Amino acid sequence: MTRAILTLNSGSSSLKLGLFDEDLNALAMGHVDRIGRREAAMKLTGSDGAPLPLPETAPEAFATNAAALKTALAAFHADFERLEIVAVGHRVVHGGIDHAAPERVTPALIKDLARLAPFAPLHQPHNLAGIRAAIDAFPGVPQIVCYDTAFHRGHPFVSDVYALPRAYYDKGVRRYGFHGLSYDYINGELARREPGLHAGRVVVAHLGSGASICALKGGKSIASSLGFSALDGLPMGTRSGELDPGVVLYLMDQEGMSAADISDLLYKKSGLLGLSGISNDMRTLEASDHPHAAQAIAYFAFRIKREIGAMAAALGGLDGVVFCGGIGENSARLRAEVCADMGWLGIALDPQANAQDAPEIGSDRVRVLVIPTNEEIVIARAARQVLSQ
Amino acid sequence: MTRAILTLNSGSSSLKLGLFDEDLNALAMGHVDRIGRREAAMKLTGSDGAPLPLPETAPEAFATNAAALKTALAAFHADFERLEIVAVGHRVVHGGIDHAAPERVTPALIKDLARLAPFAPLHQPHNLAGIRAAIDAFPGVPQIVCYDTAFHRGHPFVSDVYALPRAYYDKGVRRYGFHGLSYDYINGELARREPGLHAGRVVVAHLGSGASICALKGGKSIASSLGFSALDGLPMGTRSGELDPGVVLYLMDQEGMSAADISDLLYKKSGLLGLSGISNDMRTLEASDHPHAAQAIAYFAFRIKREIGAMAAALGGLDGVVFCGGIGENSARLRAEVCADMGWLGIALDPQANAQDAPEIGSDRVRVLVIPTNEEIVIARAARQVLSQ
Repeated sequence: MTRAILTLNSGSSSLKLGLFDEDLNALAMGHVDRIGRREAAMKLTGSDGAPLPLPETAPEAFATNAAALKTALAAFHADFERLEIVAVGHRVVHGGIDHAAPERVTPALIKDLARLAPFAPLHQPHNLAGIRAAIDAFPGVPQIVCYDTAFHRGHPFVSDVYALPRAYYDKGVRRYGFHGLSYDYINGELARREPGLHAGRVVVAHLGSGASICALKGGKSIASSLGFSALDGLPMGTRSGELDPGVVLYLMDQEGMSAADISDLLYKKSGLLGLSGISNDMRTLEASDHPHAAQAIAYFAFRIKREIGAMAAALGGLDGVVFCGGIGENSARLRAEVCADMGWLGIALDPQANAQDAPEIGSDRVRVLVIPTNEEIVIARAARQVLSQ
Repeated sequence: MTRAILTLNSGSSSLKLGLFDEDLNALAMGHVDRIGRREAAMKLTGSDGAPLPLPETAPEAFATNAAALKTALAAFHADFERLEIVAVGHRVVHGGIDHAAPERVTPALIKDLARLAPFAPLHQPHNLAGIRAAIDAFPGVPQIVCYDTAFHRGHPFVSDVYALPRAYYDKGVRRYGFHGLSYDYINGELARREPGLHAGRVVVAHLGSGASICALKGGKSIASSLGFSALDGLPMGTRSGELDPGVVLYLMDQEGMSAADISDLLYKKSGLLGLSGISNDMRTLEASDHPHAAQAIAYFAFRIKREIGAMAAALGGLDGVVFCGGIGENSARLRAEVCADMGWLGIALDPQANAQDAPEIGSDRVRVLVIPTNEEIVIARAARQVLSQ
């Protein structure tokens, strides 16, 4: 009998699964993409990262997140004899003001988290649907949620507020920051591998299809480039990042766009995709010789560079930079563009180490590290910890 | 006969006038506030900065900008015998993509500038009304316009663009930056007084009821915290500054606010006023012992500090910081909060020099200067130059 913890990250059209034994060794990972579309696809990998064989699936196998969950679980069951799920851990994007630590799902908690959906309308409802699907699939098994905002809840007031009338702050219009599970993982790795650096001032750049920067001081988040929604801060694959609110007023007033139109524009058609007109995928942009592709990469790098300077100011100086996330871990070009002309801050790259995605790529005073992030194990850890309480 | 150049800065409810002789010596300044309201008030000062006597005025003397212009001019005429206005220079907030230098007013130009009103709906129409009033008051006298955006038009692409689809950039949704007349003046003063610093990397903080930061590299603006509208970047007296576009979507979607409601909130009820709930005036906040006043000041200082770090990254290092504008020139407390814990960047203040608003207040590697700005003389200079062409 294999007793396992299952982790779930349930998005609008994707599902990530992780399977861990009780010692938190990864047994398998799953990733279903484009759920609800004809092109839906599942990838499963074993503990060694090698692909697992995929079962034959009916067309309706990926029609919904709940169906995709069943399909992926059936595939896992085929691979692991007598698999027993002892807990399910969930990533939930928004914990609001009050939820600052992992906790066990109850009907009251689900209700409370549903109330936060207006803060993250494109993410929160899908996260909750994943929880409901898991309750159906594993009745009686403890369900635990981890919040992407929790790691940032200790921000000082100046990093938590916008310059709006106070009443908005009081009702929750705050700079929450996201990618907290990723930052939590990186912070833990720093504590384990680099205690001296962990005690200092570190900027972590989580650069994937979503992207943000977090300032860590002595192992605590003190500022994040992401704020109230998943739109603030850095440009992302298809999201605008920071945008003059006057532009939104212009789109409403002068272009007659509705909130739904603008949301679609800013979440799905902007960022690297909008600027390049080519792709939201960094690899495609790097392979392109179109000048707009180079401009989109240059803009992305410039905004990261700017944000590293801003975070150094928030930290009162800088001891280290960590790159993580799909782009941060794999794009030597982006890292090189970000770190160019940063000698003033004590940042320089070793070009050879950078080209190899080496764990340590800096060659000046400020340490520059590449650490593959792992949100799934943070969820599994939290699930195990809550179980033991 | 006194031949004079008149400068006008015509806002929604205010009018600033400057009177210069042909050698650009200031003869007098005028400031009318709260135009159209019962509490409208005029201040006139002579070349020595001392108040000039005010004429008796009828209630309708400040009913409109045009009336206020006539009233102020009549007062000037009473002070300067045989005053002859040989040119009128105007501040215009928005020159769009194409207008990057001062130029003479023509009917075609007015039409073109009116087309830019959607980019600056709260400012551009009032600027143009000022031009029309001056044409009526001085038929046949050359009228010259100077753009608050012009100084920034040489920005590199990465400082000029938002991560939206290209079509928006092409139709003018760009990071224009404002306060260009002020930065132009400071840049000229640096060239004159501090040529070594002028050749280097300088951040200028224009901090008044509007506030922004500009990065100067060798005397050219390469980035500004203000962008498309007068709302981006730093928080201001009543304006929000940088705001997650997701907050605007939330206000539309969840609070049912219209574009006009949101515009009113972000332009008139936010910033220092919104955060403190007390005042938009730095002097009032400094005098208050309410904790919200201190928090509003701390937030303002934090955002400036952050932006100085970001601009240092854009510049590839930092040689000097210049404070200007009403708050920058007069608030020792704000300057001290901004420069606290900036030793990592080579910034430290001499507390005594800072307390005295001295011209040079730094005590570390990075020079820190206080330079009173003078937008009026930049307009007068431009008017004289265009006249001579």
